Amino acid sequence: MKNKMEAVVKEKPEYGAVFKKVDIPEIGPEQILIKVESTSICGTDHHIYVWNNWAQNNIKPPHIMGHEVAGKVVKIGNRVKKVQEGDFVSSETHIPCGHCYQCQTSQPHICKNLKILGVHQNGVFAEYAVIEEVDVWKNDPNIPKDLTSIQEPLGNAIETILPGNVGGKDVLITGAGPIGLISIAVARVFGAANILVSEPNKYRRDLALKVGADHVVDPANEDLMRAVDDIFGSKGVDFTAEMSGNPKAIRDGIKAVTAGGIVSLLGLPDQEVSLDLTNDIIFKNIKLIGVTGRKMFSTWHIASNLLKSKRLDLSPIITHKFPLKDFEKGMKLMTENNCGKIILKP
Amino acid sequence: MKNKMEAVVKEKPEYGAVFKKVDIPEIGPEQILIKVESTSICGTDHHIYVWNNWAQNNIKPPHIMGHEVAGKVVKIGNRVKKVQEGDFVSSETHIPCGHCYQCQTSQPHICKNLKILGVHQNGVFAEYAVIEEVDVWKNDPNIPKDLTSIQEPLGNAIETILPGNVGGKDVLITGAGPIGLISIAVARVFGAANILVSEPNKYRRDLALKVGADHVVDPANEDLMRAVDDIFGSKGVDFTAEMSGNPKAIRDGIKAVTAGGIVSLLGLPDQEVSLDLTNDIIFKNIKLIGVTGRKMFSTWHIASNLLKSKRLDLSPIITHKFPLKDFEKGMKLMTENNCGKIILKP
Amino acid sequence: MKNKMEAVVKEKPEYGAVFKKVDIPEIGPEQILIKVESTSICGTDHHIYVWNNWAQNNIKPPHIMGHEVAGKVVKIGNRVKKVQEGDFVSSETHIPCGHCYQCQTSQPHICKNLKILGVHQNGVFAEYAVIEEVDVWKNDPNIPKDLTSIQEPLGNAIETILPGNVGGKDVLITGAGPIGLISIAVARVFGAANILVSEPNKYRRDLALKVGADHVVDPANEDLMRAVDDIFGSKGVDFTAEMSGNPKAIRDGIKAVTAGGIVSLLGLPDQEVSLDLTNDIIFKNIKLIGVTGRKMFSTWHIASNLLKSKRLDLSPIITHKFPLKDFEKGMKLMTENNCGKIILKP
Amino acid sequence: MKNKMEAVVKEKPEYGAVFKKVDIPEIGPEQILIKVESTSICGTDHHIYVWNNWAQNNIKPPHIMGHEVAGKVVKIGNRVKKVQEGDFVSSETHIPCGHCYQCQTSQPHICKNLKILGVHQNGVFAEYAVIEEVDVWKNDPNIPKDLTSIQEPLGNAIETILPGNVGGKDVLITGAGPIGLISIAVARVFGAANILVSEPNKYRRDLALKVGADHVVDPANEDLMRAVDDIFGSKGVDFTAEMSGNPKAIRDGIKAVTAGGIVSLLGLPDQEVSLDLTNDIIFKNIKLIGVTGRKMFSTWHIASNLLKSKRLDLSPIITHKFPLKDFEKGMKLMTENNCGKIILKP
Repeated sequence: MKNKMEAVVKEKPEYGAVFKKVDIPEIGPEQILIKVESTSICGTDHHIYVWNNWAQNNIKPPHIMGHEVAGKVVKIGNRVKKVQEGDFVSSETHIPCGHCYQCQTSQPHICKNLKILGVHQNGVFAEYAVIEEVDVWKNDPNIPKDLTSIQEPLGNAIETILPGNVGGKDVLITGAGPIGLISIAVARVFGAANILVSEPNKYRRDLALKVGADHVVDPANEDLMRAVDDIFGSKGVDFTAEMSGNPKAIRDGIKAVTAGGIVSLLGLPDQEVSLDLTNDIIFKNIKLIGVTGRKMFSTWHIASNLLKSKRLDLSPIITHKFPLKDFEKGMKLMTENNCGKIILKP
Repeated sequence: MKNKMEAVVKEKPEYGAVFKKVDIPEIGPEQILIKVESTSICGTDHHIYVWNNWAQNNIKPPHIMGHEVAGKVVKIGNRVKKVQEGDFVSSETHIPCGHCYQCQTSQPHICKNLKILGVHQNGVFAEYAVIEEVDVWKNDPNIPKDLTSIQEPLGNAIETILPGNVGGKDVLITGAGPIGLISIAVARVFGAANILVSEPNKYRRDLALKVGADHVVDPANEDLMRAVDDIFGSKGVDFTAEMSGNPKAIRDGIKAVTAGGIVSLLGLPDQEVSLDLTNDIIFKNIKLIGVTGRKMFSTWHIASNLLKSKRLDLSPIITHKFPLKDFEKGMKLMTENNCGKIILKP
Repeated sequence: MKNKMEAVVKEKPEYGAVFKKVDIPEIGPEQILIKVESTSICGTDHHIYVWNNWAQNNIKPPHIMGHEVAGKVVKIGNRVKKVQEGDFVSSETHIPCGHCYQCQTSQPHICKNLKILGVHQNGVFAEYAVIEEVDVWKNDPNIPKDLTSIQEPLGNAIETILPGNVGGKDVLITGAGPIGLISIAVARVFGAANILVSEPNKYRRDLALKVGADHVVDPANEDLMRAVDDIFGSKGVDFTAEMSGNPKAIRDGIKAVTAGGIVSLLGLPDQEVSLDLTNDIIFKNIKLIGVTGRKMFSTWHIASNLLKSKRLDLSPIITHKFPLKDFEKGMKLMTENNCGKIILKP
Repeated sequence: MKNKMEAVVKEKPEYGAVFKKVDIPEIGPEQILIKVESTSICGTDHHIYVWNNWAQNNIKPPHIMGHEVAGKVVKIGNRVKKVQEGDFVSSETHIPCGHCYQCQTSQPHICKNLKILGVHQNGVFAEYAVIEEVDVWKNDPNIPKDLTSIQEPLGNAIETILPGNVGGKDVLITGAGPIGLISIAVARVFGAANILVSEPNKYRRDLALKVGADHVVDPANEDLMRAVDDIFGSKGVDFTAEMSGNPKAIRDGIKAVTAGGIVSLLGLPDQEVSLDLTNDIIFKNIKLIGVTGRKMFSTWHIASNLLKSKRLDLSPIITHKFPLKDFEKGMKLMTENNCGKIILKP
């Protein structure tokens, strides 16, 4: 094996990233080196690329970007038991400490000392990447290769939709970015009867219709609450999945839910959000559920099963594929929101 | 309105029934008279027709048969508020007492003093039928008329499948009689990833494949446990829906479930069933759930929503339609098991 | 029976109320007239008395105040079946419409067209009161009479604590007003291992310790978050029950919960509350549950069972008893917060 | 450290055991050697001692018995991170494989390849014992030392009672052996309103009353179903915890539950049990839950919290303490059932 590889590196604490040769990394006794075959761009990667506030506070350049990944195992640490060289694997991106209260109680995905692949340690936009044994997931051979790195955001979408028990229910999904789009597809495959999607970007509204939305609304130019009323009547929806982080979408998403209903929050607002708890949550007996990460690994089983059985067809959501070196094309599309999921291949 | 109507009547405590003129019934202050537009045959009706043990203990001839129904309201009792003349309605068939512990705690479907339409009071295989206000359900105009009487057994299927949280899961359904077939369709629409159906009748196995089964097995000639192993590996299934009442199917259905899994029991064995509780339930940490009736009316909302949105297509399950007077053709098909759901129209 | 009775009447749209003779009310066919034996003061009654904003928008004088009640049935409407003259009953205070989506799906306590006894119709601070058959609850004879009217707020406390599955858990309760105090007692009887209570009023902090708090903190003069850290370590609590409606208590109560934990909100803030959803709810995978009313009547069964078995001793919470005519003494105590639950007897 | 230790050894495949010197065991890289300070006798140990069928099929002499344990860490394997020498620890007894479906989905306690301490590998009735890092639990210093080894069966009791949501509910517990007794105490501390215990042994019925039963019945001489009817009326109980494994107790325990209720099964019948599924489970919409082991380690947190807070007082259940060498006294008491929990101290 050669000892240099190409990688997308955030080299300096500023906008952008470079494609350059770096050393192929070493692994520890409980780590795994994979030859990356497919990666995909997450909103987080875009935040790091454009160097927003969150990135400035969390990323230490030089840093290899990326965390959604699939690849072949080329080397395993001397204590690794779960996989062997040659296995085709993906990786969970939450790296748990193993000893906090959450880790001790089967909730490693919300570990108190959580580290994240591609955030707190070097990522996967590279020819080779190091993943942790605790995070490794063997891919089912029946899953199309391009979808293997998508299991991670698919897991987010599943976690968001599951609490809604959406079978036969009326559903609102606010935000149709990549995970929002996957959530629409998941809500559809889980039997949601009527799905309204709110999304300001036309490209994404069109995609939303393609993957399972029954109705779309542009919240920048239309009144979401009126659309809810027109479609679902005064009852409102049974469940809202909030995927945008937009304060108005959060507030409207909660208001749109019928008394006794459920709201999942996955989108991350970058400021505090003011809520009418009395009228919108308490008198209405609403459950508000914060969603982050994926259960390790019950959610991965569901994700894998949906893909390998072809129940879930995410191919319309994969709107672009680029060679890894062209990552900046992907970042540009992410800035414009004119994309679904973007695959990068080393 | 004339004062006689045609009806299917179990006239004597013996095999069979007759089609004859009877008085159009009177209604009480909380009852509703409907002009029947569609009815369907349930296994219970067939039990009454063939006069099995259960029927001999529960039915008092002369008795108008049938309980799955849809029709137009033609008269309402003087306290009825929920519907008006002209409304097109269906009926729940569990008639709760309203004052027992179960009724007091939002579980009227398992009322301690439960009466059942078409069992403990006259039924709906007739031109007109009396239903209770507490049971009435206004039909959504977007639901195809032939499916409106099917909402009742669809509700059974939904109750059976819901506890399995089947989205992305491996599912076994034992028994593909009419409700078993509907359950397959429901499991599929709720996102079950891989559905194995066990059913001895070829006609019904073929229907099972049509409505969503991935695999079928004939338990009379094939080894169900081996099929489970071949398809799902040593893990087994995540969930079994037992729809047959057959003791071997119940035992195998429980054994087929992976540790930590769930089994819904809807099929009614007509004898006690011997179970290896230690190895099959306790060491495996299995949940066994007895299912009967439908939640009034949260399950009806789900059923109606699935039909009106066309997410659920039950048309392949409706294999025969007859005029009410030809009800014996339907009973014959039920005896042979060569049918799905059979519609009778006055 | 005489035809005049004494009652506490909000006569004019202004601060205060009067004790005066009014007509004994008539009942409709599904209503019940009771001779009031015990009533208790709720925060809502105090709001009506002091004529706060909420009261100004919701109450139409002249209006008989009060809704927590127990009494003897003296007359029943001609359709009433659940009780007879002579029965000793209490009343649910949520009056459901019976036909909305919530009513149709076993959630009448959050009926879309909800009316509330003593708010939208005349109340129970009187010698006689009208209650609805749908709301009537027969009291168990083993419950001390003074506690029978307290079952209604006890039901609120049970609804608040139940979602926390508090057995063996670390619990924070913010606010020790009357329902907060009952919640402490309920959390204790349900097995909470360690209960911290935050309450600015000394009288109520002392009561909190008496009914089951392990620790109390005065949030006006002490740092609640530090107390949480001192007592529970960096893990925080498993569950917060927010009973104050105070925005800071709400925010701190959410922050105090460990990742994966649960927060019940019962206290009603009178303004919007700004929350750090990203860090406090989403990244921490918190469930926030709005609580209002009581399940009809599964919660009443629990409340009644806890009282009749003496598992729950609410007597320390009943700090004052007055004849009904002295209701203003009770209102004064409520203004000062120097009380637990106050009983009024006609 | 010396290299010999005293231990209770099942030396030959026959009734009994011997107290003898054996080598102090070696540890592997992920194992821990503890100096045993307290152990307790479980029914399983008694099965091994009397050499019943189950033992003959599962135990390979020579074998050190025992699995409930607390002790001081004296040596750790070179990869062990969770504890240090000197820590006072207990041990989970389910040893999971780490790679099966159950292990992968946060259910290691029902691992498909489960090994059990003191069954599949040498146990803890000895001066020193080897435990696995994956199983180690640091004891809270506030827990009385004699109770530290009891956390393991306490965990079983918690798992059994938790699904019943027993706060304010009517509860039947069938069987008051050691875990049954602990379950009574747990049901009581979790707020069960009315607890009926069925147990044929008088010594244990008396203990049952001491730890929280409201009523006891001797099923050998009294009619359990009549007792249920007398105490709970025709409603029956809300929840049964079956702790005996006795077929009649299982059947009666299920029949005693009200429609919609829950039954936990922990007792292990040594033969198949015949059940009237139709009338007792299906028509009644009962949930039957098989319980084994303890969640790792959320249940341990609850157990530890209940003990350290003194909410749960298990001291009346510890009826005997012997030096380890007198283990046969304990086995004799277990044979006669005239004991609660028996502590053995090396």
